[in-house]
Formats: sequence, structure tokens, C-alpha cells
Amino acid sequence: MKPLKIGVAGLGTVGTGVLRLLAEHGEALAERCGRSIEITGVCARDRDKPRDVDVSGFEWFDDPVTMARSSSIDVLVELIGGSDGIAQICIEAALVAGKHVVTANKALLAQHGNALARLAEENLVALNFEAAVAGGIPVVKTLRESLAGNRIDRVYGIFNGTCNYILSRMQSEGHTFEAVLAEAQRKGYAEADPTFDVDGQDTAHKLAILSSLAFGREVSYDSIYLEGIRSITPADIEAAAELGYRIKLLGVAEQSEQGVEQRVHPTMVPKSRAIAQVDGVANCVAVCGDFVGDLMLVGPGAGAKPTASSVVSDLADIARGFIHPAFTIPTARLQPHVKAEIRGHAGGYYIRLSVHDRPGAMASIASRMAEQTISLDSIVQKRPLASALSEPVEESTPIPVVMITHRTTESAIRAALDAIEADGYISEKPQMIRIEKL
Amino acid sequence: MKPLKIGVAGLGTVGTGVLRLLAEHGEALAERCGRSIEITGVCARDRDKPRDVDVSGFEWFDDPVTMARSSSIDVLVELIGGSDGIAQICIEAALVAGKHVVTANKALLAQHGNALARLAEENLVALNFEAAVAGGIPVVKTLRESLAGNRIDRVYGIFNGTCNYILSRMQSEGHTFEAVLAEAQRKGYAEADPTFDVDGQDTAHKLAILSSLAFGREVSYDSIYLEGIRSITPADIEAAAELGYRIKLLGVAEQSEQGVEQRVHPTMVPKSRAIAQVDGVANCVAVCGDFVGDLMLVGPGAGAKPTASSVVSDLADIARGFIHPAFTIPTARLQPHVKAEIRGHAGGYYIRLSVHDRPGAMASIASRMAEQTISLDSIVQKRPLASALSEPVEESTPIPVVMITHRTTESAIRAALDAIEADGYISEKPQMIRIEKL
Repeated sequence: MKPLKIGVAGLGTVGTGVLRLLAEHGEALAERCGRSIEITGVCARDRDKPRDVDVSGFEWFDDPVTMARSSSIDVLVELIGGSDGIAQICIEAALVAGKHVVTANKALLAQHGNALARLAEENLVALNFEAAVAGGIPVVKTLRESLAGNRIDRVYGIFNGTCNYILSRMQSEGHTFEAVLAEAQRKGYAEADPTFDVDGQDTAHKLAILSSLAFGREVSYDSIYLEGIRSITPADIEAAAELGYRIKLLGVAEQSEQGVEQRVHPTMVPKSRAIAQVDGVANCVAVCGDFVGDLMLVGPGAGAKPTASSVVSDLADIARGFIHPAFTIPTARLQPHVKAEIRGHAGGYYIRLSVHDRPGAMASIASRMAEQTISLDSIVQKRPLASALSEPVEESTPIPVVMITHRTTESAIRAALDAIEADGYISEKPQMIRIEKL
Repeated sequence: MKPLKIGVAGLGTVGTGVLRLLAEHGEALAERCGRSIEITGVCARDRDKPRDVDVSGFEWFDDPVTMARSSSIDVLVELIGGSDGIAQICIEAALVAGKHVVTANKALLAQHGNALARLAEENLVALNFEAAVAGGIPVVKTLRESLAGNRIDRVYGIFNGTCNYILSRMQSEGHTFEAVLAEAQRKGYAEADPTFDVDGQDTAHKLAILSSLAFGREVSYDSIYLEGIRSITPADIEAAAELGYRIKLLGVAEQSEQGVEQRVHPTMVPKSRAIAQVDGVANCVAVCGDFVGDLMLVGPGAGAKPTASSVVSDLADIARGFIHPAFTIPTARLQPHVKAEIRGHAGGYYIRLSVHDRPGAMASIASRMAEQTISLDSIVQKRPLASALSEPVEESTPIPVVMITHRTTESAIRAALDAIEADGYISEKPQMIRIEKL
């Protein structure tokens, strides 16, 4: 059988990882696929940039679109990145030219996944993206193939190693978000501009893709409810630990009667759960199916080598002739996304307030909760001890009050917090973190 | 496209689970596979046995071999069980007749996997067995497909829910092995004859299959080193907990310079590791690949519904036309198994001795360890307190001594323990449990 000819667009860490993998394991891979996979073309911005792999044996392209259309390739591997621009243009060109596409580009798929899937379908080629979600963890294949016999009820997990690293270090060291972020930037675990990670967009991109695969609906990134981790303080981490929880940035998508609820936010999970043990830059993806039950996959969520492993598994499928619709079923059969509003979400909540110690403060707070029929599982009120502080405690120093609610609704909790804020007994915006028993 | 016609042999819990899954999700599955999957024939020992699914719409076969050869089926689903006998005969008949086979039968594959894979290959049909290892966890597909670009260095995990349940309950309740086994039998988590589970054979069957998939070698069940969990006492569980470990029955297969080391035995794992958190009837499989790094899959290892989920994923692959060699590469290319002797194993060890409190006892033990150049990480020696016992402590009551060694070899530790036993200072056979930092 003729070799499968690959063109790699983008020679950053993942691109060179793919080149290295194929150089090291090309022979074993050919045996496993019954067909060899050969890089024929490569493309990057700067031909002369020093690289730790030799690219002199491949045809060089300055323009990825030219490579995408070239007869020297059967598959375009897009590792340029970006939710539009050249990445999108060269993928479209490849699909229209009847070339298969493998990409790790979650931002692009989250924004344009439906249209690209349709284009792949019309041209009878594959659009594979195992590497776009959770790095080396084979969750796309698991949802597309292994769980084909299940109705999926929920998919959730930790999809961003930067946030998980920051929260893990805040937990272990007691440092502030800002201090740990600066450390992560020094170590190369966080970008100079960390917005995309810490504000949750990256997690949301991956969630949008998983949600489409899990529920057979069109990708709908814009309907995701989004909260990042900047607001998490050492006081929250400490209170969570005391109450038996860990704080993780989770992406959660679940089927409800209203539609599909997709949300990304800091979440308190019981510390005895396996997901609470996923620390540092690891990712984890959990899927609940009606037949399989609860399945959890844990592994490296990023990095050149794990991501290359996923890119190559997509290439292996194409080499074997295993071609699917991108989102498992033909695009015409994907249901439109129906958004379930987060206000309809129900669960337990962690609330932290800074309360002015004035007569009636606690009574006011308690009655605002009662008005919304929210019942409390626990309340912890701690007056800072004068002896522990360098300065004497003023009468006016606000007292931290932490409350854990029983199951209630998002709209009830928001109404109660709005009323509490309006009453004027608290000195800063209330902190609210959702609790998931999972 | 014509429906894929299925014959199900064996209508126990898994067989009826498969029937129920296809009845509930047949339509969605057809959409996902581009082809419908229809049960046409069924076969079991007793046609008139009451069942919670209606089988009157299917062609009934009294003999699975007749069904295997019947033109009314394209695929035989073998759910009869047993390492030979009728299960083997009907699978062989199906393969020879050019029918695909899907089976959950680990015992059969562990013993006859190589020959059956060859037969499938000769007849250009699939032999799929996702359900044979770790129930609903898609580890076969992960090894065959998702990790195709990796050199696998190690695969290990908890593959037997009965043992994991027993060890978890011993841990949480402090009861003896016998007491928890009796409880597990009452709850239906353990068979009336538990040998197969608690002595490790079931774990070893699964390990043999995973090891072949991971290392591209022939299945070699007989070369697995095997120790079950009957010897684990509450004293071991308690000492492990004090030292920061949990005891799990692990199956481990790893590539070494000598060959492939395959072993099943109780193992102490640090309790902070995710694998230590896998409790009860759950299974977990961990794979270390040179590109992907450490990947772990956790989920239900048995039960009608999770196992049916895996059986159906194998059927879906056949319906989609995704056919592989059974052990990823053609049987002629599988390397012969080369056994690495457990005596060459290196790691830390937990040793528990019951020592007669006589002059020179500890000196003798210490010098026997030193003779083998085994260095100790910690020693805990506890004299039972008279006040805690109903009877006064005799001078002659043996004292439990627990030692944790630094990394050493299996042959050194065995030589030391043999010498210690021969010296006559201990009152019962030494307990030895391998430690894995994983």
C-alpha cells in the first residue's frame, strides 16, 4: 500500500514533536497501521530558524495554503493555532482539495467546528482533532467510538494545566493567585499574557468540542457560562480545605430537561474524590454514560510529546482507513444546541462574605437566605485574633463568614447575594463557588 | 447499507445487557455507525428460563456452534465463558466460517489468544475483545489505536473488582480477609468459589492480554508470576496505612532488558497516588508510553451494563468497517514472549516479621539484611501493650516488626528472608509485600 503523505503546517513544539515521533517510531507505526506514514512537506514562518529536528529532507513550503493544495500531501496537519486567520484558511483549502486534516486547534474548532465538519463531509475526508482536547488523553476517540452504545449524561473535567497548576500551588503553598501566576510564568507553565488560560476560555474551547461529541449537537462555544480563577483567594483555598474540599477549575457539560448546560468555573470538589487528586499540569476528563457508568481518564493535558502522541493517533486512523464524521454523526443530523441557562443550575454553594460587625448583620444575612428558602449546611464565622495580628483589631474590621448551602438554585443564590449586598452589611463583593459532589 | 447481523451466545447478565443496550440505543447507534446493528440469533442452555428481556423475536439456537456457522449472522458475540470447551469451539467455528467474533472471555484469550488471532487473520475477520479487560474501560482500543505512536514501557492496574472491594473493606473496617470475603459473597461481589479472583488468576488473564497489546508479543499467561491476597492481614493493612501506603492487588507488565516482566501480587502504593484512591469494585488501568507519558483510565471493571457498553463498541467498530489484527499487528509479526524472571525485579519491600523476644534476635535480622546489602528506610517494632489485651503478655509472645527497605532486588530479599527464617528467631513465615512508587 502506498505511504500516507503528510504535510505539517507549524513547526513549534508540537510540530517538531510530531516530526520526532515519526522519526523514532515510524517503522513500528507502519506495522501497526499496515501502511507507512511519511512526512513529505513542512511549512513554517521562518525557514532558517534553528530547530532541534532536521527538516532538510522534506519539501519546504513558505505558504501553508500552497502546501494544503499540493499534490505531494494526502493529509494536512495544522499546528499553527488561532481561532481564524491562516489556520482556518489552510484547513479549508485542504478540505476543499480533498485532503484529510488533523489539527490540535481547539480555538478554531470551538468557533468554526460546524462549518469545517460540513466541509470535510462534503469532500469525503477526515477532520480529526484528538490533540485539541486534553493533550495526550484519548477522549475524542473514547466519545466517538468506545462509548458509541451510551447515552451520555455528563462530561466534565480539568482541561487546563495552567489553572490546575496555579490552584495546586495555591493549595500547597498558601500563596496568592498573583504570586503563583508569576512563578508559573517564570517556569514556563503560564503565558506572558495568561488571560486565555486563567479566565477560562481555553477550558471553554475544549468543553464546547466535548459537549458536541457527547450530546450529538452543534458546537456552541458562545453559549458557555464562563468564570475564571482570578477571584480565588488563599482564604477560599483554606476554607475549602477545612471543609473537606479542593478548588478546581472545571468545565462541565450536562444534559438537562432545559437543554445542555455548559459551564466553566471554579468548583469545590470533595477531596476524597479522584478528581481532587489530579494536581499540577495534569488534565482529567470524566464521562457519565447510561451503560458504562462513570469513566475517568487522567493524563498529560499539554506538552510536545503527549500532544504529538494524539496527533499521530489521528494519522494512524486515517492510514488504516478509519474515517468518521468529525462529530461522530453527519452534520445534518447534529441537533442545534439548546442552551440551558446557568440560572437554572442546582447544587450546593460555598459563600464567603466580609461582614461589618454591626448589630443585626448576621440576622439580616440569615433572613435573606431564608427568603430564598436556602438552607445552610454549615456556617463558619471567625473573628481574627488580635494576638495573631501585628495591629490591634479595630471594631470596624470586617469578619469573614463562610457558609455552605444545601442544594439550591443558581437564581435563588444570586437573588440572596444581591439582597445581602444591598443591605450594606458587607465590605466587599460576596465570593460564591459552586460545589459539585460528582 | 445492510444491517450487521449479530448472534449472541450466552444470555447471562452480560448477554441480556447487550440485548437491552441494542433495544434502547439501536437507533442512535445506527446513526453513529452509518449502519444498523441487529440481533438475529440467540443461544443459551435453557430456552425456557425466565429472562428480563424478550428473546422471542430472535431466531433461537440450542447449539452455539450451529449459530456460529449460520448464514443468519455476520458476527458471533461469545458470552458463554470458560477457557476452553464450548466457548472455544464456537469461536473457532465462527472464525472458520468467516464470521467476526466479539468476546468478553479473558480466560480463553489468555490461554488461546495467539491461535484465535491467527485464525481470525486467516479468515479476514475481526476478533474483538474490549469487554475482556477491565469491563467498561476502553483500554484495548486505547492501546491498539490511541497509543499507536508510542513505545509502551509499562502497563499496570487494578483489574479485579472483587479483590479491590475486599482490600478496600479491610482498610475501612479493619476486618480480616475471611470476614470481608464472607460479606462480599453475601452481597454478590464474590463468587461462592472465590479462588479465581482472590488468588489472582483473573487479574493475570487480563494482564496477559494487555501485555501482548502493549509490547507486540505473543500472549503468555503461563509465565506470569502470581500471588493472591489471602495472606494479607489487618496488621499489614494497618502498618501500610501508618507508613502512608495502601495495599492493592496489581497486575504489572513492564519491558526490561531481560524481557517482559509480568506479575500479579499485592502491592503497597503511596496513598496520595490516584491509584490508591480507586476503591471498591472499580478498576483502573495505567499505561506509560514514551510520548504520551502516564495515562490512567478509571471505571467500572465489571457488571452487565459497563460490559455491554464495551461489547457494543466492538460491534460498532465492525459495523463501521474498522477491522484490526486482534493484537494490533499481524500474528506473524508478534515477537515471542521473553520472560523476565521476578527474581530480577527491583524495588522497595515491606517486611513484617513475628519475632521471638530473645537476646540477639534483632541483631541477627539486621545482619541478615546487611549480608544482602539491603538498607532499611524504616523499622517499626511494637510490643503489644498488656493493658490493651485481655490476658497478660507472656515473655514469649512474638513481637511484630515491620521494615521498609530501600530499593533492592527480589533475589536479595528472598535470600535474606530465607536466612532469617532459618535462624529461628521468628514464629511464622515472614510477610513480604512489594512497594511501587509508580
